[in-house]
Amino acid sequence: MTQQRKTVHKDLQYERNRCTFDPVEVTYFLDGSPEKTKQRRDQEQYISDVLVLKENMSMRYKSYKEVYEDSLRIARAVLSKIKKLQLSKIEEYEFVHGIFSERLGSALFQDGNPLSLHYGMFLPTLMGQANSEQQAYWINRAWTGDVIGTYAQTELGHGTFLRGLETTATYDPETKEFVLNSPTLTSYKWWPGGLGHTANHAIVVAQLYTQGECRGIHPFVVQLRDVETHEPLKNIIIGEIGAKLGMNGVNNGFLGFRNYRIPRKNMLMKNSKVLEDGTYAKSANDKLTYGTMVFVRVMLLQDLLHYLSKAVTIAVRYSVVRRQGQINAEQPEVQILDYVTQQYKIFPHIATCFAIKVTAIWLLDMYKTVQSQLHQADYKKLPELHSLSCCLKAVVSADTAAGIEQLRLSCGGHGYMTASNLPVLYGFATAVCTYEGENTVLLLQTARYLVKSWKQAMGGKPLPESVEYLNEAAKGVKHCRWSNDLECLIDAYNAVAAGSIRLAAEHLDRRIRDGVPTAEAWNQTSIELTQCAEAHARVFIVKTFANDIKQLNSKSEEFRQVMFQLCELYIVYWALRNVGNFLRFSSMQEEHVQTLHSRLEYLLMTIRRNAVGIVDGFDFDDHILCSALGAYDGNVYERLFQEAMKSPLNRESVNISFEKYLKPFLKSNL
Amino acid sequence: MTQQRKTVHKDLQYERNRCTFDPVEVTYFLDGSPEKTKQRRDQEQYISDVLVLKENMSMRYKSYKEVYEDSLRIARAVLSKIKKLQLSKIEEYEFVHGIFSERLGSALFQDGNPLSLHYGMFLPTLMGQANSEQQAYWINRAWTGDVIGTYAQTELGHGTFLRGLETTATYDPETKEFVLNSPTLTSYKWWPGGLGHTANHAIVVAQLYTQGECRGIHPFVVQLRDVETHEPLKNIIIGEIGAKLGMNGVNNGFLGFRNYRIPRKNMLMKNSKVLEDGTYAKSANDKLTYGTMVFVRVMLLQDLLHYLSKAVTIAVRYSVVRRQGQINAEQPEVQILDYVTQQYKIFPHIATCFAIKVTAIWLLDMYKTVQSQLHQADYKKLPELHSLSCCLKAVVSADTAAGIEQLRLSCGGHGYMTASNLPVLYGFATAVCTYEGENTVLLLQTARYLVKSWKQAMGGKPLPESVEYLNEAAKGVKHCRWSNDLECLIDAYNAVAAGSIRLAAEHLDRRIRDGVPTAEAWNQTSIELTQCAEAHARVFIVKTFANDIKQLNSKSEEFRQVMFQLCELYIVYWALRNVGNFLRFSSMQEEHVQTLHSRLEYLLMTIRRNAVGIVDGFDFDDHILCSALGAYDGNVYERLFQEAMKSPLNRESVNISFEKYLKPFLKSNL
Repeated sequence: MTQQRKTVHKDLQYERNRCTFDPVEVTYFLDGSPEKTKQRRDQEQYISDVLVLKENMSMRYKSYKEVYEDSLRIARAVLSKIKKLQLSKIEEYEFVHGIFSERLGSALFQDGNPLSLHYGMFLPTLMGQANSEQQAYWINRAWTGDVIGTYAQTELGHGTFLRGLETTATYDPETKEFVLNSPTLTSYKWWPGGLGHTANHAIVVAQLYTQGECRGIHPFVVQLRDVETHEPLKNIIIGEIGAKLGMNGVNNGFLGFRNYRIPRKNMLMKNSKVLEDGTYAKSANDKLTYGTMVFVRVMLLQDLLHYLSKAVTIAVRYSVVRRQGQINAEQPEVQILDYVTQQYKIFPHIATCFAIKVTAIWLLDMYKTVQSQLHQADYKKLPELHSLSCCLKAVVSADTAAGIEQLRLSCGGHGYMTASNLPVLYGFATAVCTYEGENTVLLLQTARYLVKSWKQAMGGKPLPESVEYLNEAAKGVKHCRWSNDLECLIDAYNAVAAGSIRLAAEHLDRRIRDGVPTAEAWNQTSIELTQCAEAHARVFIVKTFANDIKQLNSKSEEFRQVMFQLCELYIVYWALRNVGNFLRFSSMQEEHVQTLHSRLEYLLMTIRRNAVGIVDGFDFDDHILCSALGAYDGNVYERLFQEAMKSPLNRESVNISFEKYLKPFLKSNL
Repeated sequence: MTQQRKTVHKDLQYERNRCTFDPVEVTYFLDGSPEKTKQRRDQEQYISDVLVLKENMSMRYKSYKEVYEDSLRIARAVLSKIKKLQLSKIEEYEFVHGIFSERLGSALFQDGNPLSLHYGMFLPTLMGQANSEQQAYWINRAWTGDVIGTYAQTELGHGTFLRGLETTATYDPETKEFVLNSPTLTSYKWWPGGLGHTANHAIVVAQLYTQGECRGIHPFVVQLRDVETHEPLKNIIIGEIGAKLGMNGVNNGFLGFRNYRIPRKNMLMKNSKVLEDGTYAKSANDKLTYGTMVFVRVMLLQDLLHYLSKAVTIAVRYSVVRRQGQINAEQPEVQILDYVTQQYKIFPHIATCFAIKVTAIWLLDMYKTVQSQLHQADYKKLPELHSLSCCLKAVVSADTAAGIEQLRLSCGGHGYMTASNLPVLYGFATAVCTYEGENTVLLLQTARYLVKSWKQAMGGKPLPESVEYLNEAAKGVKHCRWSNDLECLIDAYNAVAAGSIRLAAEHLDRRIRDGVPTAEAWNQTSIELTQCAEAHARVFIVKTFANDIKQLNSKSEEFRQVMFQLCELYIVYWALRNVGNFLRFSSMQEEHVQTLHSRLEYLLMTIRRNAVGIVDGFDFDDHILCSALGAYDGNVYERLFQEAMKSPLNRESVNISFEKYLKPFLKSNL
């Protein structure tokens, strides 16, 4: 992957020459250490030939069917390559997991990966919810044998509200089997990746009925297709759900059952159990399964970081090469990155990349702590972890999707071209706003925790770290007198979050006092409740970011300066975006808004010089970035032309539609 | 198109039964009169068989090449159908224009229309810029003969900055020809719709050189392809630019010239001229061409209205049928439209549809007035019209794109499916943010007018109606004492716009006083300048909307009530979205924010009952709405299934990729 280092566009080279720090410092920071950078680069290098192969095939001109087939071709090429390394099964699993993660995965599978749920949900669920006997049987077959799995939970009529799932699994003690049924159209499984035509097994989440009673939802391993012929088994209705905004290679599927029988031992029984006679034994600690959900959200933050940092790399490099218009009539046309409006569209998202990174690391650390506490039956920190993972997933996915869209628009018309890769990145990012917990639903879950915390604070009870600011607010501690230092600004974020939570809680209480039933009062207050959860996420990110950059002592002064500027930009930017709440809830006054805006303008100007250096530090090889606008050499226009020439329409000078549709029509006019 | 009226989902029927007004009142309001409604419906009915035909072909599963070919197939079907009416040429042109406009056009051509520039730009430019002799020759051939045209202005390296266009047309008095050249890679024409393989002629905008001098950009009619064989002519380099986020049937193309010669008479000479000997005669009134640009923007507002009203129809109907979660554990699952957060995501966009409509009508009226004044050499109102058309295009396109995205997300996972039609609508709407003037550039053009107007106001000069509020502000008239009536709120919008403009102008002046060159000072102030243009657009929309609903005396009381609620919602919603500026610049105080928020909650609750009625009034036939989620009968899940079954992958139980990629891989594991 060295061909990219040739004939760099002079404007890009100029930017690189004047960068004040070594971009590799960004790389090490994001990877965690120089060793981890080496490891990642080796891995990317190892499968680089597959990446090149993929790009030559121009996925974007294929038909819907070919896109799916091509995704599996690539998956096979990657997996075969990894086989050659002859790793242990667990090493292999982790290698695949790394390759399939979105840094590389969204480059290999520009339309999504039909095997991602096999590795990302089927195997982890077996590890987490199968008992040891089941694990031995199924994991072995999934690793070495003939099982390709997926995870089938969502139904046509139910996503968010799990209790409402309609698929039934009824135990029949006669045959010691569960009988699976899809009693309604809306009960069909709908959405699971790879379910359409890829997987031959699935973990199916269904309402368990035994001894005449419904016991709630439980997971079952279900064979769907013949292992030899891949034909769907009898009484299984299966297919794929059709075209989507993006990720059309994922092979999302539907699945219905007609009295389909599976052995008793196919219910995953690490937690709850059904005995041979049909007796139901409820799990003592179903909170353990919470962990997986949180872990998935931590991984989502990483995915979002990859999408956003790719988009920002593309927008920065393009904006340095693209010249348009004049500021000074005597000068040549301006690099569009010199327009302050363009900096304003792009630089806050550079800052967001680092904000996501430090937040994801913090959340992962907390997850690990809580996970080990859970195994000692200590559930104390679980609500805090859960509430943070909810609002952070919601806020980061919304920021990322909106950010990528703004970055795409900042590239003008060319950003609309698939060759920019920005539309594809947007398709990936915006999907995250919906899956693994719809954002509004997640914000309301966090709000529930915040309202409860506020009441505890009012009752004088001490609170966990992430909501400690509520204790201060409840004691009536006023926000400090306004000053322009960062600490005061961060404290203002505390005041905004606390003020929003206080108001939402008061309005909720007032409605309940007025006789509105609690659940309805909750609904009536829900706009403010989502807003206070957002404010909570924002203050958490801001504090984590600010704390993190204080601990960069081992880094160069130049790098620390850049990080400090980005952190400050993030803090100032979001304060100005929500300036109404700062005026309402903190000691900020009208005149301070101006000072803050000047600070914003100053930061944009300062970051301008290092923008290319920072995004170079994201270290995306051209084959991973997949963008004519963002390539390392900056030869934007040549690449756009090359991409255009791949269009099948350009293989013929006259398209058949001329003879078929245009000519007869024109002639009839004569 | 009556089949849609069957077996309506009970939840939708319930909503229709309890609607307080007759939805046809909305229809008449939007169409302009019952007669116009009838006319539109007749037109839609007349081509309904083409619409049905189109839908059966499932464009979304075709390859890139097939998408283009299918667009022409549909175009031919539509045009043939219209031919049968044997209209006069001008009637026919208007009929086609109506059919191709985005209400119907975006349904007929879900991936865009390769002929839209022939009707939308080629013919109008001939009408506007060709002299009468040229018109007789070209328009006749375009209507009755063998010319299909497009409009080629944008280049690979130049969009916004027209002066920078690089294509040259050099007059050769020897042969009385212009010699066209593309001197650089970046000078290739890039983007024109239909240019790739559809058009055989184009109006090409090029730098005119004659008698050794560059005379700036001028339009030329250029033949590109042989009329009989459709082969590109010699010295023409032509093709299409490749895949895009959306509109892949538009056949956007590129075009280069190598010493390509055209007759002198192919320069459009209604305004400027080149005489036989090469003498250049400059146009006296080049401002006349301004009109076309403004007219195109008015049309864009209409297009945006169609996109947004389709999206809002889909989201409302789906949210009534979709049930998810419980508010009260004893009750069945809730219609998601009963969640206040869902109302908050949807209802403001219903209001926006009407806001766009009244604004578009106002702008069209002003355009007509100004156009007739221009013909009497009265240019007085032109700057005001231009400044309004710029900021309104920018704000309405940004609102519409963001609105459709929010509506899509409000439909959860199913909104991500192409079958919802929301991704396609988004692809259309977000493109408008970039074409016909990039939004940031347009906002800055408006800002220029506003800063100038502010200075005039400070100098005591009276200003045109749309900026009259600056006179008040300059006189130091304070915003009224806060009250909750709508007039006070509208006055607060005035205060916000005036305050933003004043600040931006002051900051600009301060920089200039500090010695920053004017153009650079402008750039440094540009964030605030775009923001003041946005505020200006918003106050204009708010006032136009509020004025308009005062003039509905002939309508029923029930309808007027609904319109009043929507107008108030629009005003309250945007005040809360920008509450910081209201706290800064108007007399709004912290405690008023709460009152306003309660007002918002009240309005959402009130509009809830009529939401289905209002969107029914948008009067979209199912074949025009093209959405499984939004169909009139509300049979959402059946339709999603039907759409899934159209996927070519579902025609075989086992896809070929099993044998090719999965099986060998699985077996190698054993």
